[in-house]
Amino acid sequence: MAYGLLKGKKGIISGALDENSIAWKVALKAKEEGATFTLTNAPIAMRMGAINQLAEQCDAKVIPADATVVEDLEKLYTESMDVLGGKVDFVLHSIGMSPNVRKGREYNNLNYDWYMKSVDVSAMSLHKFLQSAEKLDAINEWGSVVALSYIAAQRAFPFYNDMADAKAILESIARSYGYRYAKSKKVRVNTISQSPTPTTAGTGIGGFDSFFEFAEKMSPLGNATADDCANYVITLFSDLTRMVTMQNLYHDGGYSTTGISEELMAMIQGKQQ
Amino acid sequence: MAYGLLKGKKGIISGALDENSIAWKVALKAKEEGATFTLTNAPIAMRMGAINQLAEQCDAKVIPADATVVEDLEKLYTESMDVLGGKVDFVLHSIGMSPNVRKGREYNNLNYDWYMKSVDVSAMSLHKFLQSAEKLDAINEWGSVVALSYIAAQRAFPFYNDMADAKAILESIARSYGYRYAKSKKVRVNTISQSPTPTTAGTGIGGFDSFFEFAEKMSPLGNATADDCANYVITLFSDLTRMVTMQNLYHDGGYSTTGISEELMAMIQGKQQ
Amino acid sequence: MAYGLLKGKKGIISGALDENSIAWKVALKAKEEGATFTLTNAPIAMRMGAINQLAEQCDAKVIPADATVVEDLEKLYTESMDVLGGKVDFVLHSIGMSPNVRKGREYNNLNYDWYMKSVDVSAMSLHKFLQSAEKLDAINEWGSVVALSYIAAQRAFPFYNDMADAKAILESIARSYGYRYAKSKKVRVNTISQSPTPTTAGTGIGGFDSFFEFAEKMSPLGNATADDCANYVITLFSDLTRMVTMQNLYHDGGYSTTGISEELMAMIQGKQQ
Amino acid sequence: MAYGLLKGKKGIISGALDENSIAWKVALKAKEEGATFTLTNAPIAMRMGAINQLAEQCDAKVIPADATVVEDLEKLYTESMDVLGGKVDFVLHSIGMSPNVRKGREYNNLNYDWYMKSVDVSAMSLHKFLQSAEKLDAINEWGSVVALSYIAAQRAFPFYNDMADAKAILESIARSYGYRYAKSKKVRVNTISQSPTPTTAGTGIGGFDSFFEFAEKMSPLGNATADDCANYVITLFSDLTRMVTMQNLYHDGGYSTTGISEELMAMIQGKQQ
Repeated sequence: MAYGLLKGKKGIISGALDENSIAWKVALKAKEEGATFTLTNAPIAMRMGAINQLAEQCDAKVIPADATVVEDLEKLYTESMDVLGGKVDFVLHSIGMSPNVRKGREYNNLNYDWYMKSVDVSAMSLHKFLQSAEKLDAINEWGSVVALSYIAAQRAFPFYNDMADAKAILESIARSYGYRYAKSKKVRVNTISQSPTPTTAGTGIGGFDSFFEFAEKMSPLGNATADDCANYVITLFSDLTRMVTMQNLYHDGGYSTTGISEELMAMIQGKQQ
Repeated sequence: MAYGLLKGKKGIISGALDENSIAWKVALKAKEEGATFTLTNAPIAMRMGAINQLAEQCDAKVIPADATVVEDLEKLYTESMDVLGGKVDFVLHSIGMSPNVRKGREYNNLNYDWYMKSVDVSAMSLHKFLQSAEKLDAINEWGSVVALSYIAAQRAFPFYNDMADAKAILESIARSYGYRYAKSKKVRVNTISQSPTPTTAGTGIGGFDSFFEFAEKMSPLGNATADDCANYVITLFSDLTRMVTMQNLYHDGGYSTTGISEELMAMIQGKQQ
Repeated sequence: MAYGLLKGKKGIISGALDENSIAWKVALKAKEEGATFTLTNAPIAMRMGAINQLAEQCDAKVIPADATVVEDLEKLYTESMDVLGGKVDFVLHSIGMSPNVRKGREYNNLNYDWYMKSVDVSAMSLHKFLQSAEKLDAINEWGSVVALSYIAAQRAFPFYNDMADAKAILESIARSYGYRYAKSKKVRVNTISQSPTPTTAGTGIGGFDSFFEFAEKMSPLGNATADDCANYVITLFSDLTRMVTMQNLYHDGGYSTTGISEELMAMIQGKQQ
Repeated sequence: MAYGLLKGKKGIISGALDENSIAWKVALKAKEEGATFTLTNAPIAMRMGAINQLAEQCDAKVIPADATVVEDLEKLYTESMDVLGGKVDFVLHSIGMSPNVRKGREYNNLNYDWYMKSVDVSAMSLHKFLQSAEKLDAINEWGSVVALSYIAAQRAFPFYNDMADAKAILESIARSYGYRYAKSKKVRVNTISQSPTPTTAGTGIGGFDSFFEFAEKMSPLGNATADDCANYVITLFSDLTRMVTMQNLYHDGGYSTTGISEELMAMIQGKQQ
């Protein structure tokens, strides 16, 4: 069901790797709701991904950009404004990667160059997205920027490794830059702290299945899916949430505020018997 | 601009005293978005208020109810289901009153019977709304309950008096009951922590003007208005936010995550010279 | 091992029911650290408890007081100042009781008179302790008030029932009154959010064993014991923490900031096989 | 007044630049409380600082180390264990530096190499301190690591620039590594979120005076001084706080939980007249 919530709005959506990606669902939904937008991804991710198929479905141009390279982002904004016929109204930041996770280095045995890389790709890239946009004046007043985060920014999840620290700084950037951009252009910046989601990136993390199951049992509504997340992102891109900014918004079926669920109590009791 | 976000949805809206009320704006907006609903208020508030005018505008029945009286709330649900032709999909709790504030008793000189009254009217009433609804099975699956709160639940605002404690317990009830209701019926329960809003109730608090001004200077987007709040409530009643529950959501132009603004820095500097 | 951290300090310790009580351990430790104090409990709790044995050990007078009755608290302060030879430097609030928990009423079937009672006994009693003290000017400058809380104030723990809401308002009172008392007398007020502790009160809650086990598995240092808690309380009564106020301090072996532990991951994996 | 709280304990204290430094005060206090320790600082900071004077006063060896260089930190631990005659019990991390702040680059005009440098020096250095220690098994069981932070990690303070993001990741590292180190060696890791403090580093930040004044007016107990902070650090190094870990502890006279103070209300009212 579509409402026209983004009718006439223009945007940029990053991070759609394949049809399991949250960004992929956001693109489809944004299209349905009346938006036009460009798609972007790292050149390397694009080779692996099916983004062209999505681009076709959404009638969207794909503009490759390495989110750690300012020049690439400037080109992304310039070309997007060109293609879309004006400044953008929304940006989705859905970018994260940890070489330490990929190569199996534990959190107490980090390679520090890789740690820097995790932080640069997964968090500083948001700052670069924002600083580039502001310098080019590429986002309309009351525009909305959303980045995807995870509750490991607040609590220790051993398997999540250095991505936890990257998410913590990501959320800080949303607050710090959100202040600036609100003052200069009334642009709002928020992060969504999403349930563990079985995307291609997510399931690559060791122990994902167990944790997904744990979160499912803990959350009173169950885990939020990528589709659910896309719906929520749409509300944050819409004009109905104009005064929400600098927030980290939990979209997790109640996980974050549940201490223990009856299912987990029962599991513990089973073990005790 | 209307999107049909609440098309076919039924609800109950409490707390519309006059046209400055947030609840009043929510009613108008919900109507625009396609909902049908009943209105309710305490019998005493209704005599002072202009609720019948709103009722006419919204084609809504008014059902008086004292939110501290379970029987009244049961009647409210029963009649609402009767009038609306089925269970409800959303409930707005916008109820608060402190005899200590009204009668000028400071926080270190509270009358404890009145303190109990503040808590009963402003917070336990949410529990009664929820428990009555669940017993009568009056809310549809994936229904949404929203209660209005204020950041005094997290930080001390001397002028806000015992309402701060009432809001803290209100938010706790949203979490605690939110867990239960999610499990039994997938109903979600959230609070919105709204900017200081110049409603008739709000401006009755001593020092409101100064604080409103302070918050305006602190918030990078300025204070969120009652209209802004109504828009946000609509998103939470809609199907696009189904997996958001047990949250306290700041709707405040960035106030809650701003430590200090440049305006306030300048004011301090002015004083120092 | 004793350090003389409370040498010369006077205080009031509530809530020592028997030797498992946190308050009991605090009393022993405070004695060791050089403090003199009075003990108090509800008349009814005293009949069941072994408080006189503790009083003898600590050379402390027992002054019965119903913490919901202002006159009782005034008498408690007046007599304490009389016995101790001056104003007090510290107060421990370790009081909580829920008739709904005791009588097995679930959170979605609360008796509201009992709910009020839970809130009055477990939370408003802290306000009464503070307001009575301030009116009688019974606490020295830089005095320290500590109340015991639990993380159910932030997250839903179904078995904890209406005590969750009571703890939420307790913590709010610590903030709100902490502000006032800091301004008027530099008295600080904090809550400690303690691990589940197998006291006589704690183990009376249904499901306590399972939850204790869950928390033990979650906390990287394991659950904090009553003895550990007493040590921590001593630091908060000492002069070394004078600028800590209006805080809720987690004393829980890391539970509150752990998302999931490897033990729980393994348990889930075991179930999945 | 000294209590012998750290009698027999060994430690490492970083960041004592001059007598205004928090680390300087911690060193003096730790000495008083019976500890032996080494001092460390970046070679460049040592040339400017008066650390040798402190070393003499504390009978402590100074071991220069660049906290971004793992080899330096390994040497620091090895030499410290050698000098002190065994593993250490406590570590103070008081290290922070932002080239962007120093060179006047605003947050919306960051130099990204410098941003990386801010994060590396001010935050990743804590990870390096911890990983190096764990690899060398250089910290005794129940040891305590404390790092100094600031509330800009939670809320936007425009003048604090990229140090805000650095503090956010610092606090995340304390949580993430705190989990690991608790499991492997029962070592606890916490951050203290300290009032703005007029150290040489602090006052170098533009607008410090105004903000110091603002915080002083906001905090009901006033700003916590460097001396107050040293006292608090001592409690966290002591055996009395063994079960506190992975926490960010506000030491700020109540600033963090105060929404507005009467002084600020009065200032606003003055402006309005």
